[in-house]
Amino acid sequence: MKRRGFITGAAAGAVAASTTFSPNVIARNRRFRIELVTSWPAALTNLYGTAEYFAKRVGEMTDGDVQVTTYPGGAQVGPLEVYDAVSSGAFEACHTAPYYFIGQSPGHGFYTAMPFGLTLHEQNAWMIHGGGQELWDELNARDNLIAFPGGNTGAQTGGWFNKEINSVADLRGLRMRFPGHGGRVMAKAGVNIQLLPGGEVYTAMERGALDAAEWVGPDDDMVLGMHRVAKYLYMPSWAETSAMLGFYFNQDTWADYPADIQAMIKAASYEANSWMAARYNVRNPAALETLQTEHGIEVRQFPTEVLKAFYEGAQEVHEEDMRDAMYAKIYDEWDAFRTKVRNWTRQTTHAYENFIYEDV
Amino acid sequence: MKRRGFITGAAAGAVAASTTFSPNVIARNRRFRIELVTSWPAALTNLYGTAEYFAKRVGEMTDGDVQVTTYPGGAQVGPLEVYDAVSSGAFEACHTAPYYFIGQSPGHGFYTAMPFGLTLHEQNAWMIHGGGQELWDELNARDNLIAFPGGNTGAQTGGWFNKEINSVADLRGLRMRFPGHGGRVMAKAGVNIQLLPGGEVYTAMERGALDAAEWVGPDDDMVLGMHRVAKYLYMPSWAETSAMLGFYFNQDTWADYPADIQAMIKAASYEANSWMAARYNVRNPAALETLQTEHGIEVRQFPTEVLKAFYEGAQEVHEEDMRDAMYAKIYDEWDAFRTKVRNWTRQTTHAYENFIYEDV
Repeated sequence: MKRRGFITGAAAGAVAASTTFSPNVIARNRRFRIELVTSWPAALTNLYGTAEYFAKRVGEMTDGDVQVTTYPGGAQVGPLEVYDAVSSGAFEACHTAPYYFIGQSPGHGFYTAMPFGLTLHEQNAWMIHGGGQELWDELNARDNLIAFPGGNTGAQTGGWFNKEINSVADLRGLRMRFPGHGGRVMAKAGVNIQLLPGGEVYTAMERGALDAAEWVGPDDDMVLGMHRVAKYLYMPSWAETSAMLGFYFNQDTWADYPADIQAMIKAASYEANSWMAARYNVRNPAALETLQTEHGIEVRQFPTEVLKAFYEGAQEVHEEDMRDAMYAKIYDEWDAFRTKVRNWTRQTTHAYENFIYEDV
Repeated sequence: MKRRGFITGAAAGAVAASTTFSPNVIARNRRFRIELVTSWPAALTNLYGTAEYFAKRVGEMTDGDVQVTTYPGGAQVGPLEVYDAVSSGAFEACHTAPYYFIGQSPGHGFYTAMPFGLTLHEQNAWMIHGGGQELWDELNARDNLIAFPGGNTGAQTGGWFNKEINSVADLRGLRMRFPGHGGRVMAKAGVNIQLLPGGEVYTAMERGALDAAEWVGPDDDMVLGMHRVAKYLYMPSWAETSAMLGFYFNQDTWADYPADIQAMIKAASYEANSWMAARYNVRNPAALETLQTEHGIEVRQFPTEVLKAFYEGAQEVHEEDMRDAMYAKIYDEWDAFRTKVRNWTRQTTHAYENFIYEDV
């Protein structure tokens, strides 16, 4: 396995000289370089910016001992090749959306977004205290990886279209960019699904190779220029009710980091996880206004009939995936949590919002 | 100002000897002890456990160089005296709910919970990218403090009662524990409000000094024994639609920490902020089931008429507080954010939940 970027710290003899005064100095004389490949164009400051924020925070916490260098998708490896690049040890780390890799196992879908899945606070709860991280560890270990939550888009939008979607029939034959399990659900509704990295979506729409596309939400989509190639923005997203990213590390490289550096990297991941979600939830509301008031974008809600069709399609996709043992194992725990947490969310936050949205 | 717990690291001479090999060793030979007082009984593992989790993570990240010792409320200073104890420099840090200190300034309310305020993901967004932290810094600096988000209960419940609340008239004359601005709103509805630390609520209910009480939610409330002294659990909480805590640090002590230690403490705070919210959102759904199925607790939703009365009361309380210049400054930014983010949440997460709760 190729190993890159590891450089040793101060000479061991020099360190030993100081141990009579402070034993912990021994463990501290070491530096690491982490080359972190991502799936994002540098222009997408919410996504690529989260990788940069992680790098900055690791640098601050380690006082420069750990240098994280970030690369946009395509700069070192293709946006969708980052998982393999870290699994193989060609790079130490990557920042990506786990559901890009449902080809390896459908179980990766739980770690970005599942159709009709968890909202932001529910996903965080499942990961941190609901058993999600432990199952992810098991899934990733098969590919010599360890990963931590590395950002969340919060609620996404349902997609950009150039015609109104009033029924399932309006979807048939559309060529659409739609990733993850959600794309497979759309395919069952007759949509011709294509998986393109974010950086290629605009061009494909502009030259007519795509009729419709789902990317993230108002703020990112405006950077890509979606408002110049589509007229309608549909809501809500039923496929990415929140969408988590991950910071992945090669397990062999990871094992070389002392425990305090592992602790700092994990903390930086969690901080980046909150940082990114917060950024979307500040910028998307503002961008939505801009799309409507300055660019004339028409925002539509999917008809209930169409959502029901997606819901049925999601059950079919799920039944197919239950043949995968790891998917089935994760699903059983995840679904039990989903049932319980929804009962809670419905009676608390949702009930509160019903009042503020409808009664005052 | 009294300063405690600061101990120097290895002798400066010893450190200088190693600088020819690794300059960063200079900055690393130092240890700090942080005595962290809290407002929580040790039995409340969601609240006190978050302080302990923070202490553990700081210890891991600093490889033991920074030792955080946590104290339950009352062990060193009273649960509601921790803010003053850190402001004065008697202790380095505290973990508490900012809204306990609305007596100092009503502006502290924004940093735990405001009546009809932000939900969990909205509060995090406002703090991290919406300008909330910067305004908090300004507010806390007046008392020689700096603070970071240090946990969130997520959605709380509306309160424990021994009679049904079918109208505003049913509230009049009740002696109720209800903290923060929400308590002032309840007072306008005729409730006789008392502010007691969590550890005293059960006893007061049991001996009849209280008729009703709001604490946190199913999991914590069951630890306090609320299900043994009350019959009805009302939802939703309109006063604590999420409730943030803070890790506060004395500014003088804080200034002594090197930048990398400051970075680690901040990261540990943010990690604890997510950790606690996740824990509540896993444990509360399960505890709610237990309360209903094993303890016969009846869960009720407040009638819309009663919520409307609270909403009107909240406007009155707000008008009073607008006389405070710092409150007014924070409110203007916070309210502008609230309007924008609600427009986003309503069309995305809330619309999605309407479908899953009502149509499938």
